[in-house]
Amino acid sequence: MAEAAAPPAPEFTAQDVLCVNTIRTLAMDAVQQANSGHPGAPMGLAPVAYTLWQRFLRYDPQDTRWPNRDRFVLSNGHASMLLYSLLHLAGVNENHLKEGRKAVTLDEIKRFRQLNSITPGHPESHLTAGIETTTGPLGQGVANSVGMAIAGKWLAANYNKPGFEDLFDFRVYAICGDGCMMEGISSEAASMAAHMKLNNLCWIYDDNGITIEGHTDIAFTEDVAGRFMAYGWNVLRVSDANDMARMAGALETFQKTTDRPTFVIVKTHIAWGAPTKQDTNAAHGEPLGDEEIKLTKRFYKWPEDQKFLVPDGVYDHFKNGIGKRGAELHTAWKKKFEDYKAKFPALATQIQEMQDRALPAGWDKDLPVFPADAKGLATRDSSGKVLNGIAKNYPWFLGGAADLAPSTKTKFTFEGAGTFTAKTPGGRNFHFGVREHAMGAAINGMCLTGLRPFAAGFLIFSDYGKTPIRLAGLMEIPVIYVFTHDSIGVGEDGPTHQPIEQLASLRATPGLIVYRPADANEVAEAYRFAMTHTHEPAIFALSRQAVPTFDRTKYAPASGVAKGGYVLADAEGGKPDVILVGTGTEVPLCVEVYEKLKAEGVKARVVSLPSWELFEKQSQEYRDSVLPPAVKARVCVEMAAVMGWERYAGPTGEIIGMRGFGASAPLKDLLKHFGFTVDNVYKAAKKQLGKA
Amino acid sequence: MAEAAAPPAPEFTAQDVLCVNTIRTLAMDAVQQANSGHPGAPMGLAPVAYTLWQRFLRYDPQDTRWPNRDRFVLSNGHASMLLYSLLHLAGVNENHLKEGRKAVTLDEIKRFRQLNSITPGHPESHLTAGIETTTGPLGQGVANSVGMAIAGKWLAANYNKPGFEDLFDFRVYAICGDGCMMEGISSEAASMAAHMKLNNLCWIYDDNGITIEGHTDIAFTEDVAGRFMAYGWNVLRVSDANDMARMAGALETFQKTTDRPTFVIVKTHIAWGAPTKQDTNAAHGEPLGDEEIKLTKRFYKWPEDQKFLVPDGVYDHFKNGIGKRGAELHTAWKKKFEDYKAKFPALATQIQEMQDRALPAGWDKDLPVFPADAKGLATRDSSGKVLNGIAKNYPWFLGGAADLAPSTKTKFTFEGAGTFTAKTPGGRNFHFGVREHAMGAAINGMCLTGLRPFAAGFLIFSDYGKTPIRLAGLMEIPVIYVFTHDSIGVGEDGPTHQPIEQLASLRATPGLIVYRPADANEVAEAYRFAMTHTHEPAIFALSRQAVPTFDRTKYAPASGVAKGGYVLADAEGGKPDVILVGTGTEVPLCVEVYEKLKAEGVKARVVSLPSWELFEKQSQEYRDSVLPPAVKARVCVEMAAVMGWERYAGPTGEIIGMRGFGASAPLKDLLKHFGFTVDNVYKAAKKQLGKA
Repeated sequence: MAEAAAPPAPEFTAQDVLCVNTIRTLAMDAVQQANSGHPGAPMGLAPVAYTLWQRFLRYDPQDTRWPNRDRFVLSNGHASMLLYSLLHLAGVNENHLKEGRKAVTLDEIKRFRQLNSITPGHPESHLTAGIETTTGPLGQGVANSVGMAIAGKWLAANYNKPGFEDLFDFRVYAICGDGCMMEGISSEAASMAAHMKLNNLCWIYDDNGITIEGHTDIAFTEDVAGRFMAYGWNVLRVSDANDMARMAGALETFQKTTDRPTFVIVKTHIAWGAPTKQDTNAAHGEPLGDEEIKLTKRFYKWPEDQKFLVPDGVYDHFKNGIGKRGAELHTAWKKKFEDYKAKFPALATQIQEMQDRALPAGWDKDLPVFPADAKGLATRDSSGKVLNGIAKNYPWFLGGAADLAPSTKTKFTFEGAGTFTAKTPGGRNFHFGVREHAMGAAINGMCLTGLRPFAAGFLIFSDYGKTPIRLAGLMEIPVIYVFTHDSIGVGEDGPTHQPIEQLASLRATPGLIVYRPADANEVAEAYRFAMTHTHEPAIFALSRQAVPTFDRTKYAPASGVAKGGYVLADAEGGKPDVILVGTGTEVPLCVEVYEKLKAEGVKARVVSLPSWELFEKQSQEYRDSVLPPAVKARVCVEMAAVMGWERYAGPTGEIIGMRGFGASAPLKDLLKHFGFTVDNVYKAAKKQLGKA
Repeated sequence: MAEAAAPPAPEFTAQDVLCVNTIRTLAMDAVQQANSGHPGAPMGLAPVAYTLWQRFLRYDPQDTRWPNRDRFVLSNGHASMLLYSLLHLAGVNENHLKEGRKAVTLDEIKRFRQLNSITPGHPESHLTAGIETTTGPLGQGVANSVGMAIAGKWLAANYNKPGFEDLFDFRVYAICGDGCMMEGISSEAASMAAHMKLNNLCWIYDDNGITIEGHTDIAFTEDVAGRFMAYGWNVLRVSDANDMARMAGALETFQKTTDRPTFVIVKTHIAWGAPTKQDTNAAHGEPLGDEEIKLTKRFYKWPEDQKFLVPDGVYDHFKNGIGKRGAELHTAWKKKFEDYKAKFPALATQIQEMQDRALPAGWDKDLPVFPADAKGLATRDSSGKVLNGIAKNYPWFLGGAADLAPSTKTKFTFEGAGTFTAKTPGGRNFHFGVREHAMGAAINGMCLTGLRPFAAGFLIFSDYGKTPIRLAGLMEIPVIYVFTHDSIGVGEDGPTHQPIEQLASLRATPGLIVYRPADANEVAEAYRFAMTHTHEPAIFALSRQAVPTFDRTKYAPASGVAKGGYVLADAEGGKPDVILVGTGTEVPLCVEVYEKLKAEGVKARVVSLPSWELFEKQSQEYRDSVLPPAVKARVCVEMAAVMGWERYAGPTGEIIGMRGFGASAPLKDLLKHFGFTVDNVYKAAKKQLGKA
């Protein structure tokens, strides 16, 4: 590790300092006005972020969606005012956006942290023009940035062509703080980034020595530089955040580093310039106070009583810096892309579709249809076939598992699929390692960069990576999770590996759509629908154990999945006396009981309910047609926590589910032990009929 | 980092190798018989674990609960057969246990992974005598071991006295694999352990180069030794796992290291000796197959056709090694403890109570009672007072936050509480750093060692540490979580920080008891009850914002909390026409609406439902008395996902909850925006009355 190299030309001037202090004072004023927020980090980091934006970032404020723009991530999202100030001063606008995201105006800065503003407490990418990812939960942003850098490598490998070697060559920068460094996710992500030799990735560490409880040395005394060198990063140090020339030197070194990601440790001072609060945790998460602000402005030689001041020349300075550079680079790129279109029209179309989250024509033409089969196959197996069927015709659909691909059956095996490695960055199979948390955040970053990624693992381990799943819901991005081993069906591995509450947890999380398909054709139909999501993460819960493939000439077609729930098998005349409701592997059980009841002349119905969220989106009329309110005799069956099933069981229905942990045993023994048997469900149905 | 030092006497002999191969063959045979499991890691690790157990571990097989025993953790829990073999061969029995945990007999090894065996797929501490912690989800065990080492330091600081300097001086050993190393939790835990200078902690890293997807170098190429040196560990390497003398040397070096934890990297061969499967991922998670087993046994010079063979002399060899040493050490300790009892009877009583999970006499005598107060205080604030009130009289109740103590109000401020640091290991306030995941696993380890720990953070970040919470439920240990900022009441920090689905998720998790108290006295009563848990984790969801302290002369006493739910305010005569059900900060809202309805002559009831789990444990009669089935007009109010509320709302009741993410805004604006207002709840109640 070395102190950063000598400063590049041109020198930084008073005008630059004026811009930096504008960022600082906007942050101070906005937090004070909101009476809430984090002023200290923006004040300390302003010269660092300014140097990056003004001198390095290849970013066009007139088009925040330019595909080859450099990406900037604020992983310490509580420093949101730093980002809002930069977006505003750089002149990022909303004119080019269709989606309703808005630009940060000075009025929006004044409405920091207010209802319906686009300047919330932490940056939200679905609200605000120019924000690349939603951050706040610590460590997420840096891990997102790894995904963005992966996407950069992947796009370059697949779309750069002779004469167009730099169509995709963007870099990814992330600023992070001590909290990000302490969270395990940053370790996972850093290890992964170095393994993948992502030399297009630069993390800038705000080493201010302060956390909420006080000095970092009360809890955090590791050698962060040494740790990153051990991962395999290039580590640089800038000993004074206000030395913008030195910071520029570090960024130049990053740009010249070809074989590894770069980690720049910048010694900053939280709330730099605040006479009593600099270098204290008092400056972390609350307003400085009017008097302290006045004194700080005095120190900056700033008009003491002016709030939200953008001095003359500041906008122009940004315009002549990042604005001009970005416009020129973007214009040149657009021209290049026109030439590219002419030479590689099919690839150019893909690039466009990616940006629009559109599906390529014919993406579903190899989606398998599975013949009826009493023996059947595990839904993880049918999923594997479906994934391969889709991927063949959907070039930017890609992903991998947290070291579980042989178990999750998520490997793309067709010719040319390849594996993503440092040497083969165009591959579509990813080895994320045993790093569920970073995997989730990485696919968020990949998705935000236009790719269509999936992540795979055991459902139980969704707990390890819950936060990125939630954030995908908040960001409204269509990532895909393939979670297998979705119940006590795991069998011998036992309760540590058997999910119980995970389905309830994911169903309760806003923005997600959870699918638990019942057989191979439901799997196919679930993917068919999920791939059309443009704003919702799709979560698949799939089985380890085999389930029969239903004879769809006898039962209803699997296309009902698209409605979330549908009548799979019905009483003659459609007037059931009892309804059996199941999801996933419990649907075949319901069907067996249905057949038994039918043989006895009982009017029964089976409802397959693979997606509660989709079902709830249907009209009341449709839902009532599937679950007629008048039919109170109901048995709901799911090998998971019963939480939430009252909605479908109604006040008198029976819920056959899990009310405790599972156990380690062969599946057949577990099914008997926990009551997931034909006998038990049959008895429950009869009891329900007796009551009705 | 150095290769481990020269071997100590006595030398290892053929008898030792016989014992090692017994461990190996038992693992092979058990996995084969179960037709499921992980043979490779036990085979590779057998000499390592054997050396530790036979030569170093201060452990009495006749009493697995000896307070000063060394702790052994198998963090790569899938290698469970290694542990079961060791427990069996070392002669661990169940005679000393009251709790119903059973010893591993040869029969139990033959019933590996079968229903109702005590040899499940992954080690479960609540089932099996001698298992210190439940492992399987990767990285948990090593982080548990940090908590155990913390507990060792804390016990020594508080209970060792002149003449009794070694009453507590146990060491903690954890074996871990590549998966543990890749998971972020191990990074958090390792950083924490080095910061705390836990020289009583030794991790042994099974560096076998193989994971499920193949060689580790497909995903994991960091310099693990360098990383641990950067954390501040002493790093040793043993280049051949079969070189037991060298391994012994490493453990001797560990025992002499005074200023930091020790990390021993042992180069192992997965499935050592298996002719075609050694060093391959095929040996990780499936039986070797009969033929491979035969050939492996041949390589070991083992009777090829004998299964579950324990050769003559093996039991005796263990008895003369770990057995004899453990018995002698334990006997000496018991004698010492008798002397200690005589000199320090009060402290000795504490040690005994700790082991029994008993509360000290008078623990609740300073539990505050809060006077009625319309302005009131946040439940995080009343929690802070209650925690301090309890802690004063409960010496081994201790804990801390993930860098949020000023916000969670969890600091013990009374005289002598102190802070746990490397220099002051007797302190009771912990700075866990921004490491929610390791914090949770650490308190599991602390609790398993007899302390009564709590961990604190924001409810949203329970997602970062969900797995240890779940495992505490599975292990049936009474850890405590103090989660504040429990709803959109977080306000300006916005949706990244506002929990929505977390309550549902925790309520759906088996074994936990979740409390969301409504006012200061409910907080006190909730803690009063939670402290009596001996086998259930308690999860507190507490508010950032103030709530009134109810006038309990006017409303029912807060002691109703112990029943999970109770009638707080009722219609005259106890015959309500409408029931308002709330938890936490929404109960005052229900009370306001109740008063308004009452003023109009409407017969209303308010049910405060702080703990669903406790309420469900009550008799049907009690539950029906609180929520009479005949009263269908119900409004349930909670600022969280509605998932699960149908149970209490009934088929026609209204649920006022969250159906999406929150937003960044001042609280008062959010309440209005999301409908948590008197007006809205009142309207809902009237609508319900209209229907009824």
